[in-house]
Amino acid sequence: MFQSFSETAHPDQGPPRLAALQAHLKAHDIAATLIPRADIHQGEYVAPGDERLAWLTGFTGSAGFCIVTQDNAGVFIDGRYTEQVRAQVDMRVFTPVNWPATKPAAWLKEALPEGGAVTYDPRLHTGAEIEKLREGLPTGFTLSPQETPIDTLWSDRPARPEGAIRVQPIDLAGEPHASKRARLADDLVEADHNGALITLPDAIAWLLNIRGSDIPRNPIPQAFALLHDDARVTLFVDAAKLDDTVRAHLGNDVAIAPYDAVFEAAEAFDGTLRLDKSSAPIIFAQSREAAGRNTAWGEDPCLLPKSRKNAAEIAATRAAHLRDAAAMCEFLTWFDEDRPATTTEIDIARKLEECRAATGALLDISFDTIAGSGPHGALPHYRVTEATNRQLLDGDLLVLDSGGQYEDGTTDITRTLPVGTPGADERVAFTRVLQGMIAVSRLRWPAGYAGRDLDALARYPLWLADQDYAHGTGHGVGVALCVHEGPQRLSKVSEVPFEPGMIVSNEPGYYRQGAFGIRIENIVVVTEATPLPGGDVTGKLCFETLNFVPIDQRLIDVGMLSQGERDWLNDYHAQCRDKITPLLSKQAAEWLNRVTASL
Amino acid sequence: MFQSFSETAHPDQGPPRLAALQAHLKAHDIAATLIPRADIHQGEYVAPGDERLAWLTGFTGSAGFCIVTQDNAGVFIDGRYTEQVRAQVDMRVFTPVNWPATKPAAWLKEALPEGGAVTYDPRLHTGAEIEKLREGLPTGFTLSPQETPIDTLWSDRPARPEGAIRVQPIDLAGEPHASKRARLADDLVEADHNGALITLPDAIAWLLNIRGSDIPRNPIPQAFALLHDDARVTLFVDAAKLDDTVRAHLGNDVAIAPYDAVFEAAEAFDGTLRLDKSSAPIIFAQSREAAGRNTAWGEDPCLLPKSRKNAAEIAATRAAHLRDAAAMCEFLTWFDEDRPATTTEIDIARKLEECRAATGALLDISFDTIAGSGPHGALPHYRVTEATNRQLLDGDLLVLDSGGQYEDGTTDITRTLPVGTPGADERVAFTRVLQGMIAVSRLRWPAGYAGRDLDALARYPLWLADQDYAHGTGHGVGVALCVHEGPQRLSKVSEVPFEPGMIVSNEPGYYRQGAFGIRIENIVVVTEATPLPGGDVTGKLCFETLNFVPIDQRLIDVGMLSQGERDWLNDYHAQCRDKITPLLSKQAAEWLNRVTASL
Repeated sequence: MFQSFSETAHPDQGPPRLAALQAHLKAHDIAATLIPRADIHQGEYVAPGDERLAWLTGFTGSAGFCIVTQDNAGVFIDGRYTEQVRAQVDMRVFTPVNWPATKPAAWLKEALPEGGAVTYDPRLHTGAEIEKLREGLPTGFTLSPQETPIDTLWSDRPARPEGAIRVQPIDLAGEPHASKRARLADDLVEADHNGALITLPDAIAWLLNIRGSDIPRNPIPQAFALLHDDARVTLFVDAAKLDDTVRAHLGNDVAIAPYDAVFEAAEAFDGTLRLDKSSAPIIFAQSREAAGRNTAWGEDPCLLPKSRKNAAEIAATRAAHLRDAAAMCEFLTWFDEDRPATTTEIDIARKLEECRAATGALLDISFDTIAGSGPHGALPHYRVTEATNRQLLDGDLLVLDSGGQYEDGTTDITRTLPVGTPGADERVAFTRVLQGMIAVSRLRWPAGYAGRDLDALARYPLWLADQDYAHGTGHGVGVALCVHEGPQRLSKVSEVPFEPGMIVSNEPGYYRQGAFGIRIENIVVVTEATPLPGGDVTGKLCFETLNFVPIDQRLIDVGMLSQGERDWLNDYHAQCRDKITPLLSKQAAEWLNRVTASL
Repeated sequence: MFQSFSETAHPDQGPPRLAALQAHLKAHDIAATLIPRADIHQGEYVAPGDERLAWLTGFTGSAGFCIVTQDNAGVFIDGRYTEQVRAQVDMRVFTPVNWPATKPAAWLKEALPEGGAVTYDPRLHTGAEIEKLREGLPTGFTLSPQETPIDTLWSDRPARPEGAIRVQPIDLAGEPHASKRARLADDLVEADHNGALITLPDAIAWLLNIRGSDIPRNPIPQAFALLHDDARVTLFVDAAKLDDTVRAHLGNDVAIAPYDAVFEAAEAFDGTLRLDKSSAPIIFAQSREAAGRNTAWGEDPCLLPKSRKNAAEIAATRAAHLRDAAAMCEFLTWFDEDRPATTTEIDIARKLEECRAATGALLDISFDTIAGSGPHGALPHYRVTEATNRQLLDGDLLVLDSGGQYEDGTTDITRTLPVGTPGADERVAFTRVLQGMIAVSRLRWPAGYAGRDLDALARYPLWLADQDYAHGTGHGVGVALCVHEGPQRLSKVSEVPFEPGMIVSNEPGYYRQGAFGIRIENIVVVTEATPLPGGDVTGKLCFETLNFVPIDQRLIDVGMLSQGERDWLNDYHAQCRDKITPLLSKQAAEWLNRVTASL
């Protein structure tokens, strides 16, 4: 079982740790210090030894940071985590700060009217972060790089993970790493850069066709890579992670160096080195500047190429999604036909992981399953623990958001399920969410549009009822990589135009505080559209759907659907039957046939 | 009659004028010079003496420019004008250039591989334009400001217009100019600017509650204004335009100076002067730099305040739109019931202007009426002349886009009308355009969204059929000012969030080259939405519709509409009946009642 349901937060440990940190600040005449959630690789999941924010505060959310002064400690979290922070953090010594509404600089001004020396760990913050912070700070403050005191105070800090690296087979990756290195090196030459430092583990995994096992839920290796303009790569990684097969796969043009050697190598690199301001830790730019060497800010060269999945990757992830859909259908059959009356949220997560594991191909789940029943469904990022676990009750909706990591792909799917008889409000809201999700599924558009330009299409049916959801419509999804990856997003904040091969989720929702939640999610891949007769715009793009799991028709108010929406749903359900039935048990096949009856 | 139908282009005059200009370039050792369409005020319509591009090339479109070298002349025009430029310009000596696909710098590199001295008139180009041009030019080129040779070569160039200025009554303007000056001056103080030079005539008209008569279709004065941080204004304008009433209205805090005195005054202004990079001619920044004075690039301080119409302006323009709708209904009654079989496009434009004039309140039309029948409808900016005039034929669609200037408001409306029996393709396409237009009309959204975020909603029904339109969904509209005004737009290129009081058009279309065109346009004003029961998002905005003229139901394929769309249309038509019937002749009232029957 991959998922655990234990409570990892310990609010009681916060006060003594904070006291120790504040004593350290006083002793060293530091006015304030930043404690980030991110590790040096800016990942969403981090290794145990990088859980500095949780160690200090108790808060385990995937985004946030803390600013500690000698007398104060602000925990900066966004609206998703308002409730979680109150449950996990001792409010007598920590103060939650509504971020990004309150900027760190504004908070510091308030907390330290006289100014003072603020320190941050240059390994744990990007150039963009520090630049933003600096812009807002008034005179009277100094901002200086310094190793975080946490690493000294945390005496039993876990060691760096030593997860084995494996080769991603070429039939799944679709392009040899020599070819990827060569075309990225061409881009460097074009841009007049002599090299690029790659600090994102999923970018390195993609570039070198390898996968790692350092971080839960994400098959990535903790490593750095220096791409040279002649297509050679220096890979900074603990040698213990590499076996002979991987070494042979990497070949002579990929040199292996110790993980920690990256700092000296980046500083000493001759010529212009490209760093990505939004992902590379600022330590690299600072050390090069001190050494009088040239740095060029520019995008991680893997970022866009990785996001444009090739035909092999798309075929691979299609197969993974079919396998995953079959597991989902087995689960849903159990849910509808064999679920005990006493079933809890933890039972749901266990049973679902069991169905995925039964495929024989599950390497990990792709994130901790969100199984939110009743009012828990209204928390978009709810994670069930022994403490919060709740039995499913008649009239509940269950928001079930989950996914698997397979060798050939990464899945992510959300279905909302009725427990017993759903209420009228729930059905109307579900139908509006479905209309938004169908609008995106049916979308065809001329090339050149970004997530920002299209996101409103999913919200429109909810907007008409003064309803909405406080998250983006979709995130980028990797192939046998991270379930959240950039740069493409179906979101108001994304200005990256969609291109063929990009994969995003399509997951509008609706959340009624204290009552119920709804989310419907499929994964789609951007594809060139087959021209329609009577159309006169060529070069259209569309979304090809990857998940084929029925949408619960008991929750649909059919009268609200237009003919086009009904046609889409019936066609989708016919595809579910055609593609998934051959992969199912007899009971599940009969269930699938029944629940996909034409509307 | 305001509109004229004479052909103003004379392709035969281009070659000798171009030859004279090229001789001038050779004599003065100039490699190339820029001839813009814009005047010093960057207006869409310009005075006859500013028609430099038309004088040289024959091209009369409202956007474009020419680059002339000693042997070449490129006329840069966008996709809207591809056909028009071929009809108006002598292609033996001028070359049309597809802009913005081909950038001026790229064209210059090609035309002058060796580089050379390129001149531009610093009165006629903004800082942003020159910056963009300079960025693209390789070494080998110099770019220097110099009065355009056209003004020397054009011996009978018309003098500057001397149109009278009038006062905009306070009950229509809603806010005294002293109050506007005071709050804008506060903004300057806040930004640490000592003054702002305002070069846009409509901004000046709004700020001082005056209207002018220098430019056809636009009630604006050619003038400059210098706003001081103490709320005083210096108005640079030819004194002959001002009578005693206007002088008294302006009062002591608005000093009058000669129009041409702006150059010296802007150069000599002490302190930091704000200039808008995207609208102020670069001459002002250059002269201040030469004089060692401070310039701050910043937005024209009138831009956003002007766009947020106050309650009096909205009430005024509502009245203007009702009056205009009545005139449209009288026209449509004639079109349906009394139109002779031989009616031409010019007859349409004449009759429509006659109906508007019959209101007794028409000051001007707000732009030249677009009356495009059959294939002419496929040209979104078609202007009928004696040469292109065409008789309406059975089966045609007629795209009729027009508006009026009234003392209380500026109108703009497009209806597409069937001549005889419409074809099936036309009806399906019309219904899709209507669905997009209704989607925008019904829209409710949380504050913070810009045109870019919402434009796709209008295109979606067309996109589903691989159809689209090559223009924005809507432009900003003034109140008793220009029919096109910024900064708000309902367009992929607009990142200005909508705010209450902003007025935009809602005009999706569809154009089938050589066959037919469709456009449906209403004007809407952004309004705070009344919360809906069951909704839980406060602070929503919506669009209030201003035009009330029936949409032709003979062109609707009713089966394609959703219930919500049908409800919107029936409600809209009921409002047309309620609001407009009292203003109509008996015949038109009966017609209105008939054509607005519930679907």
